[in-house]
Amino acid sequence: MHDPDHRPLRYDPAERFASGLPASGAWRPGDPVGERRFMTVTEGRPFALEGGGLLEEITLAYETWGELNADGSNAVLVCHALTGDSHAAGPMSAGHSGDGWWDEFIGPNKALDTNRWYVVCANVLGGCQGSTGPSSDMPGEDRPYAAGFPQVTIRDIVRTQRRLADRLGVGQWLAVVGGSLGGMQVLEWGVMFGDRVRLLMPLATCAAASPQQIAWSAVERLAIVNDPLFNNGDYYDAPPGKGPWAGLALAREISQITYRTTEVFDQRFGRQHVDQRREFDHWGRYQVESYLDHHGQKLVRRFDANTFLVLSKAMDLHDIGRGRGGIEAAFSRLSSPVFTASITSDILYPLYQQAEIHDQVTAAGGRCDHHILDSPQGHDGFLLESTLLGPLIHDAVAETEANL
Amino acid sequence: MHDPDHRPLRYDPAERFASGLPASGAWRPGDPVGERRFMTVTEGRPFALEGGGLLEEITLAYETWGELNADGSNAVLVCHALTGDSHAAGPMSAGHSGDGWWDEFIGPNKALDTNRWYVVCANVLGGCQGSTGPSSDMPGEDRPYAAGFPQVTIRDIVRTQRRLADRLGVGQWLAVVGGSLGGMQVLEWGVMFGDRVRLLMPLATCAAASPQQIAWSAVERLAIVNDPLFNNGDYYDAPPGKGPWAGLALAREISQITYRTTEVFDQRFGRQHVDQRREFDHWGRYQVESYLDHHGQKLVRRFDANTFLVLSKAMDLHDIGRGRGGIEAAFSRLSSPVFTASITSDILYPLYQQAEIHDQVTAAGGRCDHHILDSPQGHDGFLLESTLLGPLIHDAVAETEANL
Repeated sequence: MHDPDHRPLRYDPAERFASGLPASGAWRPGDPVGERRFMTVTEGRPFALEGGGLLEEITLAYETWGELNADGSNAVLVCHALTGDSHAAGPMSAGHSGDGWWDEFIGPNKALDTNRWYVVCANVLGGCQGSTGPSSDMPGEDRPYAAGFPQVTIRDIVRTQRRLADRLGVGQWLAVVGGSLGGMQVLEWGVMFGDRVRLLMPLATCAAASPQQIAWSAVERLAIVNDPLFNNGDYYDAPPGKGPWAGLALAREISQITYRTTEVFDQRFGRQHVDQRREFDHWGRYQVESYLDHHGQKLVRRFDANTFLVLSKAMDLHDIGRGRGGIEAAFSRLSSPVFTASITSDILYPLYQQAEIHDQVTAAGGRCDHHILDSPQGHDGFLLESTLLGPLIHDAVAETEANL
Repeated sequence: MHDPDHRPLRYDPAERFASGLPASGAWRPGDPVGERRFMTVTEGRPFALEGGGLLEEITLAYETWGELNADGSNAVLVCHALTGDSHAAGPMSAGHSGDGWWDEFIGPNKALDTNRWYVVCANVLGGCQGSTGPSSDMPGEDRPYAAGFPQVTIRDIVRTQRRLADRLGVGQWLAVVGGSLGGMQVLEWGVMFGDRVRLLMPLATCAAASPQQIAWSAVERLAIVNDPLFNNGDYYDAPPGKGPWAGLALAREISQITYRTTEVFDQRFGRQHVDQRREFDHWGRYQVESYLDHHGQKLVRRFDANTFLVLSKAMDLHDIGRGRGGIEAAFSRLSSPVFTASITSDILYPLYQQAEIHDQVTAAGGRCDHHILDSPQGHDGFLLESTLLGPLIHDAVAETEANL
């Protein structure tokens, strides 16, 4: 007979989240600095944002690898993606929750050879790993912006990076490179500061966010705000275990599906259960669910929910043609050649978007090489396919340098 | 200067949800019956579920169109998808929140011509529109199962449908047809009760849920349980406006993206804003966000969060080969030909899955016609492409009838 005390639909989140983690995974002053260095963007005057807000103080956290040469001509700027940070290369350490996100690409004798080139990566404006963002204290106050942080755009992010270039003595980047949100920054570098860069390398990205991409961003943001512990962004003082993890983790789990492919999931997980004995239990999990949970839980330890909101919206706002008479008119401002790359299986930034970049740059009179990487890895291919992508990047940067 | 009272990240859900709706959109006894009829599956003995639970009482709500002929040979069973119900055809009315979900396909002189054929559709076991499910009262109690409802499987659903066939006097269905979750039922009909059906028409479906499909289901379920008003499934007594809408709506919004395509979104929405003046506001919305919200809000008025959990898990559990020595061995039990159809742009049940059904049925010695519909509509194509799909369905059913 039916046992009314058996409650198969009851959900025990304790199976997903260890307790006692801090409410935000943001880096805060006092935390281990690791390899970060810091630069104040605002020197006595506020920074006006594209959307109309002002920020009185902006700090960028950045890292560098290799040495800048005497004429400042060997510098490469690496731009990170949504949940990345300045730690593009180097090991996990106090202050860095993992190995560099592009460690396979950056280092001695790697694609971005630090014996030869000076590589720079900065946490973006609005981020949470040392650069000014929602988890930063407001000027003159000892409480964070939280929900008071203004919406920033890719153009705002790139303008802060230009000031970093000035400070580092980089008159002209040899190359600016990045995937996804990073690639949006690369394109804006070319349009806004074409004379400051010699090679643009936007990977697995788009000239303007598509409505499907906006849709994914939108449901991820709703996952965060639906979490009652998000508390309208005011969670920084919450006791350990009372942060908006469930919402932020869910946002990550949704996005993680879009970053990968059915081929990868079939090959890695198939229909395997975590515990075969729980096959028919409502909350018994398949291995792929465990994988998603793992990624969700990992992100909340090093990321911040408000930063997710701000940067995901910045991606939606990305439109290289906004206020410039459209995309082709914007691309007509480029003075550097473009190297773009697609992953054939990318379902989030599909190949057609990089083909459009190629066609629009070419139509505007520019030069664009479009490399197509045949890989089942999906959007994450730009992080994972170092064997395929690394040599292409290396050769393009080396060729640009040789044509000085 | 930065205005700390300006709180761009504050989220006002009042912009998304009208207030005062009931906590669940489930049909309840006392609500208008509409076109539903009811049948008790359990006659004095409990129904044993594949996963081990028992249900003492099962009612199915069903609808019929056309007339069963004297020898009971003109009956077609239509199986609904995740959020469908028995109202496959006919207008919106008291008791039915909208027109029939396959109204373009079912009716006089339509693909399933009700002048000729007797068409039946039942709300599935576990559903919320009149068939026994989590929102139904437990036997002898005046409170619903809620979280106490046992997990059901596609095989359980089909076994209740077989009893409906017995009751209606349908010895052998001329055809059993359905898309998505409906198509899973079609395949189980063929394997479990091959002698009771002459033509199997599984559309836009799969022989076994893939890990990517499980992943989508999983994040949709998490969206529901993360809603504090879900309250572990005990929300039926919540006051109006206090049901788990935000979670259920988010689950729908996620799935809605997977039901459609980037082509459709580009064409319908592009990058248009709801209110251009709010372009840089964090919660200013693009048209595609408004579209998703519309679908989320619409679903909560006619659906039930616990049913979503149960049926989404039933889809994950779908594996035609489970306990049968694999998929090909299961398909070797088929005694009816298979008609399957793919929508080229379907990202949720991609074409390769119906090609696999074709190949596996054929390898097992059966016959399978695989129709490929060139359409940008995505997974929803099996609901929308009546002009392309309707004639194919009509002709296949007519041909089967002619070969009596």
